[in-house]
Amino acid sequence: MKRIAIDMDDVMSDTSGRKIEWYERDFGIKLDRSKMKGKYVSQFVPKEHQKIVSDYSQHPDFFWNFDIIPECQRVIEALAGKYEIFIVTAAIPFPNSYNAKYEWLREHFSFIDIRNIVFCGHKYMIEADYLIDDHAYNFEKFKGKGLLFTAEHNMNETRYERVDNWFDVENVLL
Amino acid sequence: MKRIAIDMDDVMSDTSGRKIEWYERDFGIKLDRSKMKGKYVSQFVPKEHQKIVSDYSQHPDFFWNFDIIPECQRVIEALAGKYEIFIVTAAIPFPNSYNAKYEWLREHFSFIDIRNIVFCGHKYMIEADYLIDDHAYNFEKFKGKGLLFTAEHNMNETRYERVDNWFDVENVLL
Repeated sequence: MKRIAIDMDDVMSDTSGRKIEWYERDFGIKLDRSKMKGKYVSQFVPKEHQKIVSDYSQHPDFFWNFDIIPECQRVIEALAGKYEIFIVTAAIPFPNSYNAKYEWLREHFSFIDIRNIVFCGHKYMIEADYLIDDHAYNFEKFKGKGLLFTAEHNMNETRYERVDNWFDVENVLL
Repeated sequence: MKRIAIDMDDVMSDTSGRKIEWYERDFGIKLDRSKMKGKYVSQFVPKEHQKIVSDYSQHPDFFWNFDIIPECQRVIEALAGKYEIFIVTAAIPFPNSYNAKYEWLREHFSFIDIRNIVFCGHKYMIEADYLIDDHAYNFEKFKGKGLLFTAEHNMNETRYERVDNWFDVENVLL
């Protein structure tokens, strides 16, 4: 059975959406995602707000109850019938994310065995046939095939095969 | 550079020692480790106490400030000069351990990059040349070489090369 490693933030959960939501809460400005091409939320806001937005992900409330990326549950559950699934998230640098991520996965992806959840930093030491991730740097030393999940910040990346959404993942892998 | 994955509980940190300490606190009985051959602490206590001891590891206070296994810091720091080190701990089933483990590693093993810390369940999907672990079942599907770190509970295991302590690890790997 082939193995797929799947990233969480901006692949399964709408992490950038939370940043946009908090930015509107804090500054009264609704950011337009369609204009963010090639930029993280923290790079898209005015210079004087960048550190504040960067620091959101260290806030104890930030990682709780994220929205789910559309079709993600349905497609991962279908993938789980044909592949071995590991959820591999670079959570370690964000200690406030650990329990929120665990609870979120338990709530929305209860069909995934908790032994198949990985909190890490680097990902290249994970042995898998595929890695679905929004960060191209995770593919650089990864030995399997990287599938770049489209997000505003990676729009200019051209080195890896791209999946724009979970329908695309379904087409490529099922 | 070859890669070593190193388990935490009962390899780096004295997890069983904490169970023995809590058992004495709760029942006034000091357990004799030298008599535990082949058993976990929870299997060594009388039947009516077994669930209580098993549940210690889900208690919010359990994982904080463990004692360090002798010579572990010195040897891992020396290994880090010659190998790529990942700390790979099956923390995910113990949500109360996450922050305690992170803080403990930051305090006592600050020379290890946090991106080289892995909280997981299964370990066989970690690509490494060696895995130092006290649980033989972690070697069964692991593709590298397992080094079984001696602990009371694994004394009867004969399938894998054994290291009795960190001096042994030093002799084998340095």
